[in-house]
Amino acid sequence: MSASRRIVVVGGVAGGMSAAARARRLDEHAEIIVLEQGRYVSFANCGLPYHLSGEIGRREDLLLHTPESLARTLDLDVRTGHRVTAIDRAARAVTVDGPDGTSELSYDALLLAPGAVAVRPPIEGLDHPVVHSLRTVPDLDAIESAVAELLGSRPEGRAPRAVVLGAGFIGLEAVEALVRRGLEVELVELADHVLPPLDPELAPLLAAELTAHGVGLHLGVSADAVTGTPDGAATVALSDGTVLPADLVVVNVGVRPASTLAEQAGLELGPRGAIRVDADQRTSDPHIWAVGDAVEVRQAVTGAVGPVPLAGPANRQGRRAADSICGHRTTPQQPVLGTAILRLFGLTAAVTGANQAALRSAGIDHEVVRVHPGHHAGYFPGAEQVHIVASFAPDGRLLGAQAVGRAGVDKRIDVLATAIRADMGADDLAELELAYAPPYGSAKDPVNMLGFVAQNVLDGTMPQWQPGDLDDVRATSLVLDVRSPPEHAAGHLEGALLIPHTELRGRLDEVRAAAAGRPVSVHCASGVRSYLATRILRGEGIDARNLSGGWLTLSALRPDAVVAPALA
Amino acid sequence: MSASRRIVVVGGVAGGMSAAARARRLDEHAEIIVLEQGRYVSFANCGLPYHLSGEIGRREDLLLHTPESLARTLDLDVRTGHRVTAIDRAARAVTVDGPDGTSELSYDALLLAPGAVAVRPPIEGLDHPVVHSLRTVPDLDAIESAVAELLGSRPEGRAPRAVVLGAGFIGLEAVEALVRRGLEVELVELADHVLPPLDPELAPLLAAELTAHGVGLHLGVSADAVTGTPDGAATVALSDGTVLPADLVVVNVGVRPASTLAEQAGLELGPRGAIRVDADQRTSDPHIWAVGDAVEVRQAVTGAVGPVPLAGPANRQGRRAADSICGHRTTPQQPVLGTAILRLFGLTAAVTGANQAALRSAGIDHEVVRVHPGHHAGYFPGAEQVHIVASFAPDGRLLGAQAVGRAGVDKRIDVLATAIRADMGADDLAELELAYAPPYGSAKDPVNMLGFVAQNVLDGTMPQWQPGDLDDVRATSLVLDVRSPPEHAAGHLEGALLIPHTELRGRLDEVRAAAAGRPVSVHCASGVRSYLATRILRGEGIDARNLSGGWLTLSALRPDAVVAPALA
Repeated sequence: MSASRRIVVVGGVAGGMSAAARARRLDEHAEIIVLEQGRYVSFANCGLPYHLSGEIGRREDLLLHTPESLARTLDLDVRTGHRVTAIDRAARAVTVDGPDGTSELSYDALLLAPGAVAVRPPIEGLDHPVVHSLRTVPDLDAIESAVAELLGSRPEGRAPRAVVLGAGFIGLEAVEALVRRGLEVELVELADHVLPPLDPELAPLLAAELTAHGVGLHLGVSADAVTGTPDGAATVALSDGTVLPADLVVVNVGVRPASTLAEQAGLELGPRGAIRVDADQRTSDPHIWAVGDAVEVRQAVTGAVGPVPLAGPANRQGRRAADSICGHRTTPQQPVLGTAILRLFGLTAAVTGANQAALRSAGIDHEVVRVHPGHHAGYFPGAEQVHIVASFAPDGRLLGAQAVGRAGVDKRIDVLATAIRADMGADDLAELELAYAPPYGSAKDPVNMLGFVAQNVLDGTMPQWQPGDLDDVRATSLVLDVRSPPEHAAGHLEGALLIPHTELRGRLDEVRAAAAGRPVSVHCASGVRSYLATRILRGEGIDARNLSGGWLTLSALRPDAVVAPALA
Repeated sequence: MSASRRIVVVGGVAGGMSAAARARRLDEHAEIIVLEQGRYVSFANCGLPYHLSGEIGRREDLLLHTPESLARTLDLDVRTGHRVTAIDRAARAVTVDGPDGTSELSYDALLLAPGAVAVRPPIEGLDHPVVHSLRTVPDLDAIESAVAELLGSRPEGRAPRAVVLGAGFIGLEAVEALVRRGLEVELVELADHVLPPLDPELAPLLAAELTAHGVGLHLGVSADAVTGTPDGAATVALSDGTVLPADLVVVNVGVRPASTLAEQAGLELGPRGAIRVDADQRTSDPHIWAVGDAVEVRQAVTGAVGPVPLAGPANRQGRRAADSICGHRTTPQQPVLGTAILRLFGLTAAVTGANQAALRSAGIDHEVVRVHPGHHAGYFPGAEQVHIVASFAPDGRLLGAQAVGRAGVDKRIDVLATAIRADMGADDLAELELAYAPPYGSAKDPVNMLGFVAQNVLDGTMPQWQPGDLDDVRATSLVLDVRSPPEHAAGHLEGALLIPHTELRGRLDEVRAAAAGRPVSVHCASGVRSYLATRILRGEGIDARNLSGGWLTLSALRPDAVVAPALA
């Protein structure tokens, strides 16, 4: 290793800073220069909403390092306010606009970690001063000062009104933060459910949590225009004709790779504009590496390629790029699972692998399994349901999983993310040996239960019917509700035959008569009792199948089909 | 399948009841008879300590099913108070002692789920009425009524005094329960640390938690005798001469397989007295299956065979046995990881795979890696250290992991248990894509950090020194403490050179002079700063190595070596 090697890193957050730090640890004598166009490096971008909410009390806690601390601990030359405007690949030099003007900086290795830029949706009036985004420390500072001013003035003695555009991860975190600060919040999302990456049957749980905290939901609509009002506030006009008054508008409708510099330098980009890299993070130029939100990755399950703006992969990519630059052994980049998690008030929602929409659009055959077990033993106080939806290949391989609940969600998704990475299937999940004591889990953990149910579905022990097929199911089979009469009375499907599961063995004749040769489509609340009933019926030679996810899922997806007592 | 097949299950808890339930779901017409010698079936044995503590308020919550409920839902013929005294394998019949006398019962398939019996340690006076065990509902009832009586009478106006013998999982749960109920508790353990399956460096964390809750610890000693006192209480004499007054004694020093019936029937047993079964849970008799605490399993990492009394494996074995009995597809039994978890007041301790002692005694070469990361992002309020110790094979495979902390412990052990099952190694852990948002984890999760450190150790980037080698290290190398002066002042190793890591680059001459050609053994508090220092030194051509687990581990394992300010 040459003592004079110069490594230039463009972008001083997440991936870029991971690379710089790792490079120093591998090469004590390299000259490592980090160029960051913003005022801050190594800040906690995932923490911004939690400072806005007030949970992270001190703004400086978000600033994990400063140029000074990085010089002291890692001997890095970190230059904020320095923007790279061009790469001269032949000369191995970058052009830098800094506080002291424009200069050239040569490199032996160049690492690009430019991140992503917020997508600016096609909405009129987005330049109105009440409109903000939430991606950077200056963004946060601006929202924070707007909120403080609004709370201080309280026009007309009412709570300030915020409109949040985009119900993705950051949008929802912003909603919670603003509600915690005392604002009235309206949430606008183009997709027909909140948190679009979530499978639609889980989204109603989040919607209910938002509603319970006073958030107004506007789903399946777009914002058309932001219009200033004489008092300095604004209105947001939606595509359905609604006009929302807004003292503050926060826009987070997604990001796109900040790949302009790379593109202008002639580096190869993918079809979605992300920088193409090899397994060692090297671009099409052998002296240039790239990491983070700006690079193209492959989705593990579907094989789709594109950018994935997640902190975890960015950090690991930075480490890998440094290993490659320094000639250290590298662990080749693995396809991305897209594991992500959201806290929304008392709920947690998390995803890993491919969701149902991605599987469908990739044409990947799969069976959807849904379970609602307690997050720990039911006899121990405080058990909370974990609502899990998972997709399995016909050969049993786990393709994706999502979960929503009030406790134990992150643990199950992390186990399932590990399982997908290990190519595990239903049989493996059934046999996982997870830590059990009553405060933590069950002897049959929710992950085991998911495996058991998937085994039963895949080997034909328990054929399923899907809530999405309800209309067809009602037209061609007998729907058998095996819940208790009070549960039935609180909401049921019209025309369903009610026989509590404990009475089924003695009332088979009624089932046979009502079915009249048609299959029997059984359901209960969560799928457990109806599984027993399905097995009883199949043991008697009746073609029975169980509703995936039970009434909990069906009533969330098809509220229109629910006959409530007032209507019955 | 014959409509008249009779399946007889011996033992109606965990494994036995799982088997009976699964058998019914697979065969609607089988006659399924469950013979349980006790008064209760399907009770929550793992919940007993939590009823004693008062957390599970209602005793009936522990009784998950009754013979009546099992008849109603699963058409099972459950007979409590029925003890099987003999198996006539040739006639395929068992002899049953029941409330109405002795009878014979024939079977087509026999499933043995007899569980384990408490080991009775060689202590004089164990039949004294103040002595109890905690394994069954009647055990619990007896302790409960003794505690209630003691709390009601409060002899001499003081808290009742309990002595707990055995600091394993159940013993420690019993300690916590008794403390919560207001008793003064003394804990006696033959091993030199609490929770013997735990690696010794983690046990001091539990010991400190016990002490903080007023529990007296007597480690490395045995109880010799329980002697009655005139007031109806007793004393417990320990091998070190201590005599503990005791209003209540709870003994839980382990269990052994309840395999007498199987042995008398001539079924093959393993060397440790457990019933030998094949991958489908079938014993040496093709018409007899066995599951649970009484059967022999293989340890996944060491290959050792013996019984493992854990609820999770028992339940899955029951399911597998039923699959086999009913001719259903089986998932072959997998070797056991021994994943287990304990709540001890505010702490959680969990283990999976082989501990260091098991690896040593199996002669398996391994490298021990220790990390102490926060359970979530440090800038988000409430981050708690997770103390993780893990062993890796030279090729990187994860062999075992243990963790102790106040939050996030169960999640990491479950992920690591999944990783061991999948034969993952350090590179895989480094690349796991786990769910990250500030309330849940870090962009580099503790599991990723463990992987990173293991990679650095295994590929030579960061050679380690082990706290167990302290004396040798001090004799042959320079110990370099790179913490801050206040940390050093609060406790350090005599003769260690103090240079804060941020000053190291400017003070290399001091290091070289003090080392005088010897290697440099670096340490900080947790191992992070000393890793940076180790890399700086190695980059300068100095043979440096980093203390595994840092001062946190060293001072726990070798308190005798700590020079505290009062002594310095």
